Parts: sequence; structure tokens; C-alpha cells
Amino acid sequence: MRISQIGEFGLIERIKAIIGNPVIGDDTAPVNIDTQTLLFTCDILIQDRHFKLSYPSSAVGWKAISVNVSDVVANGGEPLYALVSLVLPDMEVDYVEGLYEGIKRACDFYGCKVVGGNIGKGEKLAIDLFMVGKTGRFVGRRGARLGDSLFVSGTLGDSRAGLELLLMERKNYEPFELRLIEKHLRPTARVDLSKHISKHANASMDISDGLSSDVEKLSKASNVRIRLFSEKIPISEELRLFCKKHGKDPIEYALIGGEDYELLFTHPFEKLNPFLSMFHIGIVEEGEGIFLDHKPIEPMGFDHFRVL
Amino acid sequence: MRISQIGEFGLIERIKAIIGNPVIGDDTAPVNIDTQTLLFTCDILIQDRHFKLSYPSSAVGWKAISVNVSDVVANGGEPLYALVSLVLPDMEVDYVEGLYEGIKRACDFYGCKVVGGNIGKGEKLAIDLFMVGKTGRFVGRRGARLGDSLFVSGTLGDSRAGLELLLMERKNYEPFELRLIEKHLRPTARVDLSKHISKHANASMDISDGLSSDVEKLSKASNVRIRLFSEKIPISEELRLFCKKHGKDPIEYALIGGEDYELLFTHPFEKLNPFLSMFHIGIVEEGEGIFLDHKPIEPMGFDHFRVL
Repeated sequence: MRISQIGEFGLIERIKAIIGNPVIGDDTAPVNIDTQTLLFTCDILIQDRHFKLSYPSSAVGWKAISVNVSDVVANGGEPLYALVSLVLPDMEVDYVEGLYEGIKRACDFYGCKVVGGNIGKGEKLAIDLFMVGKTGRFVGRRGARLGDSLFVSGTLGDSRAGLELLLMERKNYEPFELRLIEKHLRPTARVDLSKHISKHANASMDISDGLSSDVEKLSKASNVRIRLFSEKIPISEELRLFCKKHGKDPIEYALIGGEDYELLFTHPFEKLNPFLSMFHIGIVEEGEGIFLDHKPIEPMGFDHFRVL
Repeated sequence: MRISQIGEFGLIERIKAIIGNPVIGDDTAPVNIDTQTLLFTCDILIQDRHFKLSYPSSAVGWKAISVNVSDVVANGGEPLYALVSLVLPDMEVDYVEGLYEGIKRACDFYGCKVVGGNIGKGEKLAIDLFMVGKTGRFVGRRGARLGDSLFVSGTLGDSRAGLELLLMERKNYEPFELRLIEKHLRPTARVDLSKHISKHANASMDISDGLSSDVEKLSKASNVRIRLFSEKIPISEELRLFCKKHGKDPIEYALIGGEDYELLFTHPFEKLNPFLSMFHIGIVEEGEGIFLDHKPIEPMGFDHFRVL
């Protein structure tokens, strides 16, 4: 049996059975050291899967840090340390220096630092990042409560539209298109929400595979049904313009577009803080599955292996 | 300028200048959390560089854990947690399960556990491991003192001979050859020496690139000269038989063969513990460079990029 027959998530189930650790499945792994709860996570960017060599290498470095910081803040933590593991072909030294300049800039921005790493030779470039964070209270995917409201930290679908624009490899882009591309190339992890999540959220994760796919993970982990309100899902003006131009549906981009790196979390509606970037997009109900308004929907997100 | 023009270690110097963290260079990165000193490290195994797909996948999993545990014990620590980051082509699920069985077996053996990980798709298999350990006292490469004796924890050169035997792809191997192959396929990290190193060593590292290359790193980091005694370097009977059969010099295998994962450490001779596996192979002197008996030698070890 090949991996493509069971998909990435089918493979993960088998791995969990071997390792025998029920914790695996959240964005980070929480571990208690003395009085601290540390969060460990890793995420990899692979050439021609997650980025192309034609992208600015400083953006790739920035993104490698950001996607890991996003995992840490999704669980209510703040980032502390990073280890950078590189697989490199023989390439220009300038490129690698740009990569590290992006890593350094992101670490300075998020307030963490690189403490180590490793370099190996391979045919394609891969940047594997390990990150250590800490939290006063770990919030994972399994705590959503009946009656909770579901929130998202920002607009969805922009990154997917930005990727499609990038892949067109045009010479000229309009300003709104460049902003969508920027969302794809240089996502910013929502460190501004870390404390709110740690203090108030019952369940939390980041959106990396697409809203519908990630909401499904949260609903399964928490054993609840989640109902999304289509007209409440935040859509950027840039995405609206993009969809108008190309005859697409922005809600579809929000539901199945990946790599948004926005946060998805639940808590009672009353804990909504109007001074923070958080949008009420759904509710937690008894039952299972995900509904868009009054219709059950099938999750459609990114599985690295599944042949659809 | 290409990476091959400056080599792996030249590239690391440039990266250090960007990151601006002087700690980078030891086998692990020590970080203080409350009253604990945690050790972070990562090491990657890449298909066709570090292993072939024809090797048993459980051995590859075992080795991925072992090489990281080796870094932790080299700095006087004990392993606690691992994160496994896999880059996978579409392949047999059985293979991946074997890999994880090897990982699990190694974790049980060393007393650590897998707490998380990540899977990405790529053209070649890579297993990137992130490990967290702890120590009561961190021992790095820079503390060797004048008058210290240099010790190694076991025989050297076996892994290289085992690799050469494996690459012959013969149908039949003699028992001593199988033992050399086993040393290459399933190295055992020297957890038995972790407490001794933490308690007594002034400088310590593991031997992954070859004795001469790694002794040079220790001598440079500590600003000392190191003199090796050729007849004291421990050589296994298996390596002697191999070298006799193929007309090779076992000392050369010990000096330049990599992937031994034995420990290299210094402390006063009086601290030698005859109940532990430790061999006195040299002394720390004023000056620089490495000497084999009375002759200065050039380090010859493994650089992933350098074209020699």
C-alpha cells in the first residue's frame, strides 16, 4: 500500500499508533519543565512544494520562522528559540545569506532567536525549522465547548490568490495583486493574539491547510459540530477584486485556500475583545461535522499525498 | 560564489555572522529554563547521502534518534524529547511504519519520547530530528585545558569500513564484516558516559565527521594543540581483519572515517574511570594544530560541500 492510497492524515494515524502518544495532533507539543510549559513544534518548507527558487530568499526565511511562530501562538504561547535545519544543493552563497537575513529579521520581529542548526546536502532546498515557545496555559484543539463562538483572526483566502498570481509569472501586477502576493510570500504570525488565546480560548489552532479542513480537525478533536456563517467570514477587498476579475467565489477561496496562518479559536461570545483582530465566524454545537449556514459541507483542504 | 567554493564550514561562518550568536558550534545549544539547562539539537538523515532505501527502515529510524542522542550526551546531557520531521516521496506505508518502529525502539532504549513532528512531501526521503535534553552541567568544545588528557569512548573507523562493505552490495558477508556493517547501520549513542562527562570533562563533543577533523574542531574551539598517540587509538579486531583483507591502514580509517558516534572529551588523567569505556588517546598542549605522535597532521574529514 502506498502513502497516496491513505493520504497524509491516514499515515499520521498509523504513526500515532506506533509512537503511542495521544498528544500528537496539536500545532505544538506541550511539555512541562519545572514550573514552565514549553511548546515544541517543527515545520518544513520544501523547494517546489512550498516555494520556488525564484522567490526572494529573505521571504522564504521570513516565512519559515513565521509558520512556526504561528503554531506557537495558536496554542497560546510566545516564541523563544529556533533551530534551523537546512538541506542545500550546491548553490549561490548569496541565496543562503538572504535566507538567513530573512530568518534573523523575523526572529527580531517576533522576539525569538536562533540557537542552533544543521546543514546537509541534498538535491533540493528544504528549510526545516524547530521552534521552542512557552505558555502560561496551553490551548489545543480538543477543548471547544458547546455554545462557544468560533473566531478567526483575519481575512482568509488571500494567500491562495497570491500563490495563483505568483504562478502566472506575469511581468506586471496591479497594487492589490501585489498585496495578495505579499500575503503569500511573507505571512505574519498573529503574535498579537497569543495572550488573548492563552487567557480565554477553549480550543485553538492555526489555519494552514484551509478553513474547512482545519475547522474539521478542530470539530473532530473536540467532538462537536461547527456551524460557519458564510457572510461573516472575513474577505479582504483585495480578494474580492481578484475574484471579480477571474470570475471566482471568494468564499470558496476562504474555505479551501491554505497557508493563511490566521488563528482559529473558540470561547464564549462575551470574551470577544473589540480591540483585537478577531471575527466571529461560527458557533459550536452538539453533534459532528461542519455546516456552512444550513448545509453540511465536506472539508476540502490540502493533503500532501492524497490523490483527489 | 557557490557553496562548494567555501565548503560547509565556510558557509557556517557566514551564517554565524548574520545570526550573531556565538554559541552556535557545539553539538547542542544550551538554554536555561528556570533552574534547568536544556539542550537543543537537530540532525538530519538524507536518502542517498546518509542512507540508501535498501537499508532496513527500522535501522534508519534507530540511527536518526541515536545521532541526536549522541549530540546530547556529548554535552553531558540526557535525552528527553524528540520531534520527527519527515520529508517523504510517495512510497510504501510499510517502509514508513518500519522507520517509526526503529524510532520508537531507540526512544525506549535511550529513555526519551517522541512528542511531535511533521510530514512534508518531497522527491527524496529525509528524516530530520529535533531533540531536547537536559544536563546538570553543559560541557562544550571550548573548555579543554593545558595538561588535560584526551579520551575517546570506543573503537574508531568501524562505521566507515561497514559503509564500504555495504556499498559492495555483496550477497554474503563474513561475521566480522556483518559486525562492521551493524556499527554503521545501528550506532549506539554513548549514554553510559553522559554523567561522567557532565561531572568531569572540560571539553567534549561526539565524533561524527572523523577523528582528525573533530579533534581539530575541539583544538580550535579551545585554542590548544592536541597530540594524538597513534598506538593508543582503539581499533577493533573487526577493523584489523577488514584492513588486512583489503590492504588498508586501520589508523587511517580511525582518523578519517566518519559516523563513529563515539565521544571525544578531555579532563585530567586522574579522573579516568576504569569501569567506564574510555581510552586515553592524546594530550592537550600549548599551541595550535593537531599532531599524530611527533608529526603535525592535516585534518581530513567530511565536508558535505567541499570539492576536494
